[in-house]
Amino acid sequence: MNIQQSREVEEAIMAWTDVLEAERVVWDETSLFRYSRSTTPYTTRPCAVLRPESTSEVQTIVHIARKFKISVYPVSQGKNWGYSDACAPVSDMALIDMSRMSRIHEINPELGYVVIEPGVTQGQLVSAVQEKAPGYQVDCTGAGPDASVLGNALDRGFGHTAYGDHVRSTCGMEVVMADGALLKTGFGHFGNARAECVYPYGIGPMLDGLFSQSNLGIVTSMSLWLMPVPEAFRFFFIRCPDDNKLEALVDALRPLRMNGILNSAVHIGNDLRVISSTMQYPWERCNHKTPMPEAVRRELRNAHALGAWNVSGSLTGTLPQVNAAGKHLQHAVRGIGKVMFLNDRSLHWRKKAVHLINRFGIGMHWRRQLDVGVPNYELLKGIPTLMPLRGAFWRVRTPIPEIASGIPLPDPLDVGCGLIWLSPVLPIRGEDAGSILKLLTPILHGYGFDCLVTYTMLNERSMVAIINLSFDKNVPGESDAARLCYEKAMQQLVAHGYYPYRVGLGGMKHLVKSNDTFWQTAHRIKQALDPDNILMPGRYIPEDV
Amino acid sequence: MNIQQSREVEEAIMAWTDVLEAERVVWDETSLFRYSRSTTPYTTRPCAVLRPESTSEVQTIVHIARKFKISVYPVSQGKNWGYSDACAPVSDMALIDMSRMSRIHEINPELGYVVIEPGVTQGQLVSAVQEKAPGYQVDCTGAGPDASVLGNALDRGFGHTAYGDHVRSTCGMEVVMADGALLKTGFGHFGNARAECVYPYGIGPMLDGLFSQSNLGIVTSMSLWLMPVPEAFRFFFIRCPDDNKLEALVDALRPLRMNGILNSAVHIGNDLRVISSTMQYPWERCNHKTPMPEAVRRELRNAHALGAWNVSGSLTGTLPQVNAAGKHLQHAVRGIGKVMFLNDRSLHWRKKAVHLINRFGIGMHWRRQLDVGVPNYELLKGIPTLMPLRGAFWRVRTPIPEIASGIPLPDPLDVGCGLIWLSPVLPIRGEDAGSILKLLTPILHGYGFDCLVTYTMLNERSMVAIINLSFDKNVPGESDAARLCYEKAMQQLVAHGYYPYRVGLGGMKHLVKSNDTFWQTAHRIKQALDPDNILMPGRYIPEDV
Repeated sequence: MNIQQSREVEEAIMAWTDVLEAERVVWDETSLFRYSRSTTPYTTRPCAVLRPESTSEVQTIVHIARKFKISVYPVSQGKNWGYSDACAPVSDMALIDMSRMSRIHEINPELGYVVIEPGVTQGQLVSAVQEKAPGYQVDCTGAGPDASVLGNALDRGFGHTAYGDHVRSTCGMEVVMADGALLKTGFGHFGNARAECVYPYGIGPMLDGLFSQSNLGIVTSMSLWLMPVPEAFRFFFIRCPDDNKLEALVDALRPLRMNGILNSAVHIGNDLRVISSTMQYPWERCNHKTPMPEAVRRELRNAHALGAWNVSGSLTGTLPQVNAAGKHLQHAVRGIGKVMFLNDRSLHWRKKAVHLINRFGIGMHWRRQLDVGVPNYELLKGIPTLMPLRGAFWRVRTPIPEIASGIPLPDPLDVGCGLIWLSPVLPIRGEDAGSILKLLTPILHGYGFDCLVTYTMLNERSMVAIINLSFDKNVPGESDAARLCYEKAMQQLVAHGYYPYRVGLGGMKHLVKSNDTFWQTAHRIKQALDPDNILMPGRYIPEDV
Repeated sequence: MNIQQSREVEEAIMAWTDVLEAERVVWDETSLFRYSRSTTPYTTRPCAVLRPESTSEVQTIVHIARKFKISVYPVSQGKNWGYSDACAPVSDMALIDMSRMSRIHEINPELGYVVIEPGVTQGQLVSAVQEKAPGYQVDCTGAGPDASVLGNALDRGFGHTAYGDHVRSTCGMEVVMADGALLKTGFGHFGNARAECVYPYGIGPMLDGLFSQSNLGIVTSMSLWLMPVPEAFRFFFIRCPDDNKLEALVDALRPLRMNGILNSAVHIGNDLRVISSTMQYPWERCNHKTPMPEAVRRELRNAHALGAWNVSGSLTGTLPQVNAAGKHLQHAVRGIGKVMFLNDRSLHWRKKAVHLINRFGIGMHWRRQLDVGVPNYELLKGIPTLMPLRGAFWRVRTPIPEIASGIPLPDPLDVGCGLIWLSPVLPIRGEDAGSILKLLTPILHGYGFDCLVTYTMLNERSMVAIINLSFDKNVPGESDAARLCYEKAMQQLVAHGYYPYRVGLGGMKHLVKSNDTFWQTAHRIKQALDPDNILMPGRYIPEDV
């Protein structure tokens, strides 16, 4: 930042302080450092952090930003784990921390929707819905109870139930534009539309898509549909012992996902991915080497009663529907894996699990399998869990005793967790699932990483593979290795036609090529709506095309 | 058109003729007249009609249009019945008739999708899918076998099965932009993306929404998901005798639609709406008066074995699922209506119907009810039907014998059919269904129209009410009455918060108010992408905001 720029920042901070309370405009070193941390190797530092409490304050912030030509970067809770956390694409933007805008404007138990602000967390929303609309459940992502619902939806994060595709359950947004004007999408802008929160398209062009994975406006409110609590719910867990049956497994499940027998976001994880959410890397047993020796991996797999591939999901509907679906599922995976069902309508899950174990006399093996199944079970019932986040601690050398005991986990940023996600999208087809594995495993091994992977069937035809590069930021060289590995993996994925559903810093350069009408069009829209490039420059939409 | 404009049109026509064959550029009086006809009272006349056969020809057409500053207006098959047919918002645009672009680029039986051009009709697609991917069915709208699939989807027309919301089953488009560049949305622009036709969002902003109900580009190809033919299919028909039970009926069905027991686009029609698709207005019995005397209406209702309200839809899934859903449905509407089920897996429906009639000994009453049910039954099985279009002939004085005998119907434009749709969106809530009826009935009666209405549950929370203003364009004064009635009805609907899902000419003026950030934003995007206003000026996005 040169002197002229510094002066503009100072003036802008004075102007912001005039309209917000002083404590809601911070730019001390400690605060700026906190916001600059990331689990990824890519970090940037803001010039100030602003904490609005209302949409009109956001409008004012944007007006001032425009006046002083300071770019702003909004974050909801800043918990964009593995995708750059609260870090803006470049340093010296003013961060708008929206966590104080945490009002739930409406919970509608008749039509099953909520209207929420960016600061509303998964945990907060679940509590509110349980109290005010107990016939519904929230679709939670694996980002934990403190993550923002709205922020995650705008980055197209996904959950695990039939409402797992949040783009499909979003119905209208309120957006602060770069000129400070307030846009309402769908029917919302008419002011009196009865169907505002239940019909997503409005009349005329649909603008909602412009505000996810982009930088065209700051979303300050969103309406989101809730899933009716199903009459019957059955959790299933399929254990596939054979490493080589991934392709057969995927092809066996596709028809069931396609015809709706499976209507949740079916999850297929390999042994290491599941294990990484229950323990840290066994450094001693591996003689401090990575990737993990095959023998240790086999031992761990057996000790955790896991398959090479492990499928979880839920069957929901009426009781006869669920019973029938269960039979279909068992039939479909015959010869590939064994299906275990779990059910819980009133008791706390653990009680029920113990009860089942006693009742059916199943042994320690199954009990361990239940343990690793619990968090997915909870997600499928709309309860946020920190379990998936535990994988962030996998390769940290410092022992984290909370991993075994459960929550509360420490903040991954406080203990130097390193984490980057690779998240290529593929058709639900065994061949593609296998290709990605064959492509990535040698690259990851080359940089000392194991391949920890899940495939999540997001809709009837496509799934997202999530591979976590977990590392220890406290160990010199690990960040670099992770970065190089990430770059190489992205390059190869893209070359083979597997594009990510979402990226953090460092991802976009693999996705932009010159003379692509798509990016040129997005860029033209950006110029038209934000000529001064005030809002989140560099976020998804490239600046030069 | 002044002399200068005429000269530019002539020069453009010469340039277009140079690149297309002469017979694919027409501007003779007869042709222009044919394209200027509409069932609505609002008509405009093109200055020429161009018939490209490929995307690159569309690009060339746009280049020339831009050079000579002639606006163009694409139509797919021009069968936008009741929403202005092939008419552009204003006269003297060059019409691009895309009906010769009727290639089906791909039918994928593994992942269940097709990639189609604008000229592909419902009938053509159904035949192709039956042949090449017999495990799938097409979701058809009521616009008949000759209507374009792509054109209808861009206007957010809806079908009747679980895939009835075509926005949700569209996955990627190819679009000719105003500068002639070719845009591919979703992952399509990367060229090699494996998930191009199965994951709709791509990475970065979603641009697809910009091209439905708008004028920002000419869509030349679209990928569309197909519905797997369900293992079990059961058609249901609910007859509600009581006029006053609409609200109770809607409230009874909402929870079933919400929790997925009903997963097709449930259809609720009043007696007159159903009757209008089987006969013309009984002028003699009504002493040539409108609206219809209550006594005649009662007679007709009884003669057709109809309820005041008539629900149709399908239950699909596995056989036990369908059986269970059927019981739920019967229980839910107890005391409101009587449920009749129909099933057909291999036989032609009519054979089956007769068989059922014989088998169960049900009488003439039920046989008539079957007759009115057939077309919806066919739609729910993915077979396009002309039945809904028969309502267009309702008020035409000339007898149309084909109404009773079935297809082929004459072209509604050849016999002077008058038709405008009102199509307000409302939450699935009895109160709202009742409000719309109370609001519209006196207005329609005041202009001599009956209230012919259906409510279609488009998603789990909202439905669209479709009211047809049917009239005879050959009778002086009827067009004016329809226009005045339409304007008044639109005004009142909007004032009460019921906004249309779609409009033809004459509709937009009720939806645009000044200083609305939504329209201003759409307008800004329009200016950025089409600064010369070459593409469809006035279509949905207003020119002055």
